[in-house]
Amino acid sequence: MNKPEHPVTTSSFSSRFLKETAQVDAASVQPLPNSRKVYVEGSRPDIRVPMRAISQADTPVQFGVEQNPDILVYDTSGIYTDPQANIDIRKGLPALRAAWIEERGDTELLNGPTSEFGRRREADPMLESLRFDLKRKPRRALPGKNVTQLHYARQGIITPEMEFIAIRENQKRQQLGSEAVEAILQHQHAGQSFGAAIPQEITPEFVRDEVARGRAIIPCNINHPESEPMIIGRNFLVKINGNIGNSALGSSIEEEVAKMTWGIRWGSDTIMDLSTGKHIHETREWIIRNCPVPVGTVPIYQALEKVNGVAEDLTWEIFRDTLIEQAEQGVDYFTIHAGVLLRYVPLTAKRVTGIVSRGGSIMAKWCLAHHKENFLYTHFEEICEICKQYDVAFSLGDGLRPGSIADANDAAQFGELETLGELTRIAWQHDVQVMIEGPGHVPMHLIKENMDKQLECCDEAPFYTLGPLTTDIAPGYDHITSGIGAAMIGWYGCAMLCYVTPKEHLGLPNKDDVKTGIITYKIAAHAADLAKGHPAAQRRDNALSKARFEFRWEDQFNLGLDPDTARSFHDETLPKESAKVAHFCSMCGPKFCSMKISQEVRDLDETQVAAINAQAEQGMQEKSKEFKDKGAAIYHKA
Amino acid sequence: MNKPEHPVTTSSFSSRFLKETAQVDAASVQPLPNSRKVYVEGSRPDIRVPMRAISQADTPVQFGVEQNPDILVYDTSGIYTDPQANIDIRKGLPALRAAWIEERGDTELLNGPTSEFGRRREADPMLESLRFDLKRKPRRALPGKNVTQLHYARQGIITPEMEFIAIRENQKRQQLGSEAVEAILQHQHAGQSFGAAIPQEITPEFVRDEVARGRAIIPCNINHPESEPMIIGRNFLVKINGNIGNSALGSSIEEEVAKMTWGIRWGSDTIMDLSTGKHIHETREWIIRNCPVPVGTVPIYQALEKVNGVAEDLTWEIFRDTLIEQAEQGVDYFTIHAGVLLRYVPLTAKRVTGIVSRGGSIMAKWCLAHHKENFLYTHFEEICEICKQYDVAFSLGDGLRPGSIADANDAAQFGELETLGELTRIAWQHDVQVMIEGPGHVPMHLIKENMDKQLECCDEAPFYTLGPLTTDIAPGYDHITSGIGAAMIGWYGCAMLCYVTPKEHLGLPNKDDVKTGIITYKIAAHAADLAKGHPAAQRRDNALSKARFEFRWEDQFNLGLDPDTARSFHDETLPKESAKVAHFCSMCGPKFCSMKISQEVRDLDETQVAAINAQAEQGMQEKSKEFKDKGAAIYHKA
Repeated sequence: MNKPEHPVTTSSFSSRFLKETAQVDAASVQPLPNSRKVYVEGSRPDIRVPMRAISQADTPVQFGVEQNPDILVYDTSGIYTDPQANIDIRKGLPALRAAWIEERGDTELLNGPTSEFGRRREADPMLESLRFDLKRKPRRALPGKNVTQLHYARQGIITPEMEFIAIRENQKRQQLGSEAVEAILQHQHAGQSFGAAIPQEITPEFVRDEVARGRAIIPCNINHPESEPMIIGRNFLVKINGNIGNSALGSSIEEEVAKMTWGIRWGSDTIMDLSTGKHIHETREWIIRNCPVPVGTVPIYQALEKVNGVAEDLTWEIFRDTLIEQAEQGVDYFTIHAGVLLRYVPLTAKRVTGIVSRGGSIMAKWCLAHHKENFLYTHFEEICEICKQYDVAFSLGDGLRPGSIADANDAAQFGELETLGELTRIAWQHDVQVMIEGPGHVPMHLIKENMDKQLECCDEAPFYTLGPLTTDIAPGYDHITSGIGAAMIGWYGCAMLCYVTPKEHLGLPNKDDVKTGIITYKIAAHAADLAKGHPAAQRRDNALSKARFEFRWEDQFNLGLDPDTARSFHDETLPKESAKVAHFCSMCGPKFCSMKISQEVRDLDETQVAAINAQAEQGMQEKSKEFKDKGAAIYHKA
Repeated sequence: MNKPEHPVTTSSFSSRFLKETAQVDAASVQPLPNSRKVYVEGSRPDIRVPMRAISQADTPVQFGVEQNPDILVYDTSGIYTDPQANIDIRKGLPALRAAWIEERGDTELLNGPTSEFGRRREADPMLESLRFDLKRKPRRALPGKNVTQLHYARQGIITPEMEFIAIRENQKRQQLGSEAVEAILQHQHAGQSFGAAIPQEITPEFVRDEVARGRAIIPCNINHPESEPMIIGRNFLVKINGNIGNSALGSSIEEEVAKMTWGIRWGSDTIMDLSTGKHIHETREWIIRNCPVPVGTVPIYQALEKVNGVAEDLTWEIFRDTLIEQAEQGVDYFTIHAGVLLRYVPLTAKRVTGIVSRGGSIMAKWCLAHHKENFLYTHFEEICEICKQYDVAFSLGDGLRPGSIADANDAAQFGELETLGELTRIAWQHDVQVMIEGPGHVPMHLIKENMDKQLECCDEAPFYTLGPLTTDIAPGYDHITSGIGAAMIGWYGCAMLCYVTPKEHLGLPNKDDVKTGIITYKIAAHAADLAKGHPAAQRRDNALSKARFEFRWEDQFNLGLDPDTARSFHDETLPKESAKVAHFCSMCGPKFCSMKISQEVRDLDETQVAAINAQAEQGMQEKSKEFKDKGAAIYHKA
């Protein structure tokens, strides 16, 4: 996603011997409180789907206790939160998909990078100290072969990736609690899905079918075997993306890896590496080798670096070499701004904020300078040829997205969207997976129009939006202005939400900002899953609310998206440990407690309820009589 | 609003001689940056409507500069941000409405408080050091008179309050910029209003008519002449409320006044004082005397204090005395939980979170203990008699609102809502103004049902909701989970949004939390105004976006809801002053700038655009030919 949250120039390196000293970020490897990693095995022992099991305290009841079951939640944090795992970022993650890829027999190991740039970097002795020590050679499809999940899906093949995803998406429930507890946890509202159709149980065949239909994608480059398969589509859980990228301001490769591990700890389903500067290539290698979620990039950023930032000097050949370079490193999806056509550029002239997408403006600049059609568009089929050799998915960029409320849903934006639809169909002819990027800044009442138009133009290919921001007037709070729009568009059918941090429009996000952005977007995604009626999504809400009602403070913290913050907020008011087992809350205090009264209501027996209803009936009759006696004056509206 | 954000027990006092030493909070009396207070005069010189004018820098253009107009924004901060004003919280604010109230000739000055409690407090020498030194006597309607704005409105009288509001709501625009600048600022999307009908210009007659219809209220107790009139109704700007209240944890009267001035600085349209403990009465006096926005309370909280926290000991007589006590201090609206009927109580038994409203559970407890109907319901007409003598508006409390996603829109909640409708019609028979409180915790797809049902049950009386929270799983971030719901329900027609702070469910909000809650809710309210198509709401977004596009950094900060945070975020990345006039941003840097390219597009002349279109036309023909040559293979969907 080509939004302005990426950094700028070359990175500085704190360590000259990165490959000897690099350490994992300590904050990212602690298991979350009261949580343990569990693996659900599939049809073969190497399908082991990670989940987080949050354990709960018992509820005291009249005779003994009532057990509250573990709550299983979707877990993006990889092995970092598994105390059993041996973590060494200098070695990278285990290649869990390697055997699956190899056994398909449609790929070959290359002798080394085939891109000119990749070879040059590998040969440069100056980079030795920065280089990730990858022993593995890159892999590519055999001549004439197509290795995309879409290609397999259309042939009716259910890959291990698809089975992995089916297990992962089910948020499998373990019934460990009593009947009464289960009754509360299952208490669920039907949702409104706007045409999405999420089955009660996700099967591997359903995954295959959705991928074959183009309605979902599985970003999983064969050169990123470390990734844990995940799916992006509107009949699945809504996903979120977090952006990272090195900066001129002292961010090292190690820090970028730390931002990645920090991001997935809090729930980022994919990571986009928007690094720029001198060591993009090496930074990316470290990130991908240590990243258990799909990694996306905007290749035009690196191509621009290769021509020293002069957009007019970009050529198809340089871009093509960049695609191959990145595909062989394992990038899972490419943002490609192929919809910025020459004829759309003048449509932006009267806008309040013109072109705000960096990729979009690079291509606009190129088109204007050469008076030629966008080379990403004219060479689109050649890009497809590259993507299908590695299974890189498209994220078709919205280079003309609105940068302000005033510019939302205008001719430039919708013109480009139609072209993205045309490109989707071309990519599908090549069995290349596609998602579509979306805005941006959109007032609430125009959000649904965006979603509907995208579904229509792009034949239901998954939509992946930045926000949208629902007002422009709150710089410093754009995670919130956009979290509102993100929740809504997720409900309407958007498959993935690109996060926005509080620093949007103002500066570079630090670790705190990354966390705030991710938690905000987890809220938006989960609120959307609830509204769509995703089966079992509400189970976590019910468990947390039950814990809250029963004053199980620790469980309330731990079932939340950010246990650390919840605990520290509580402790600001009532710091003592004893306050966390107290049967009253920090707001009402011990003297009066509304939750205690609710318990009394729950304890009413049938006779008592019958007496209440009789009493009420009598009261209503008296009132009715009183009303008649008064002459039944009818209120007359002014 | 009776949510758990209120504190608990008695307050401690840092100063023994409050009335000699009390100081205004310094942070609340600085004008906001580049802003000045302006007063728009009405039909008489004592109608002076405050607004904030934000001045902007010029835009450099080819020959000279282009002026950017001042942007006028709605201003809730009272005289605190007026450097001309003489501020002394020991003396309170000037009584700007005093003459209007007096000249109506339907009120009398009392010799002193008529409530038993009020008299007792006045006579207690121990309270001398805490007591606000009010020289003024309380005022009450003459026997047989009704002094509500609804009463005047129905008689066709346009009060000065109504005229004040008409001016205030218009967000009057001054056309100071060039034609080109105005064209950009006026660029506006039509909204979708769901039956609301906001006129292009708000007239005093429109205000009167909406009040007469019961569709809007003007909370303005005759004993709070310091308040600047404002209106709550869905054909006006969406309003927000902030809660304050003293606590057991060291919060003094002075701190509560500081929280109030801090809250209105950031945009709180009303303040609810949820104080509890020994000095509620004195705290409230200080707050009201210094508060330029309406003040709401939940009188049952104080009544409960008077019976030492034992709900069953509450009586109508104690409650009645409390209403009079507070009405004579100047409380502008009362939350009254008169809809918690005995027969609804058992309906909450199967809920995940029972009854979570404090007021609701107090009344439920009372009903169960006495096996009698809620005395607020049975005495409702007597409450109306009190309200109409002071013009206290009702905020009919939703004591049975859902405390979790699972409990949303259930029989208990909707049963109570129907009773609130019945009570609305009774209040209207007495010409007492009414708004209706709403939930709570509601998933996105059930929010509109809430709004529609409220409009239907309560004959379009204004709705005033807490959030709603759209998921339960993010303690520590409930300003965000609820900000999403608040924006949506505001769009659907909710008139006022009660803020939620990050500490919700966890602890007592501090000053930072208050600010975060308020800014989040200003975002929600403004996003709703944009979506409804409120005339001129988008002008501020357009001005900010224009400033952003033109790298007028200071203007971008100052036009935002929180200039201080925006500036400090910017400075974290690029701290130098020079960075704030740089023609590039902190994200892309000087080498490549998407906004610069947009400027080039804007500078294209007609000949250039014609050439582009010719080029594009030719390209399309070639593509079409290529497609035909390929055999026009139609992609077949899988």
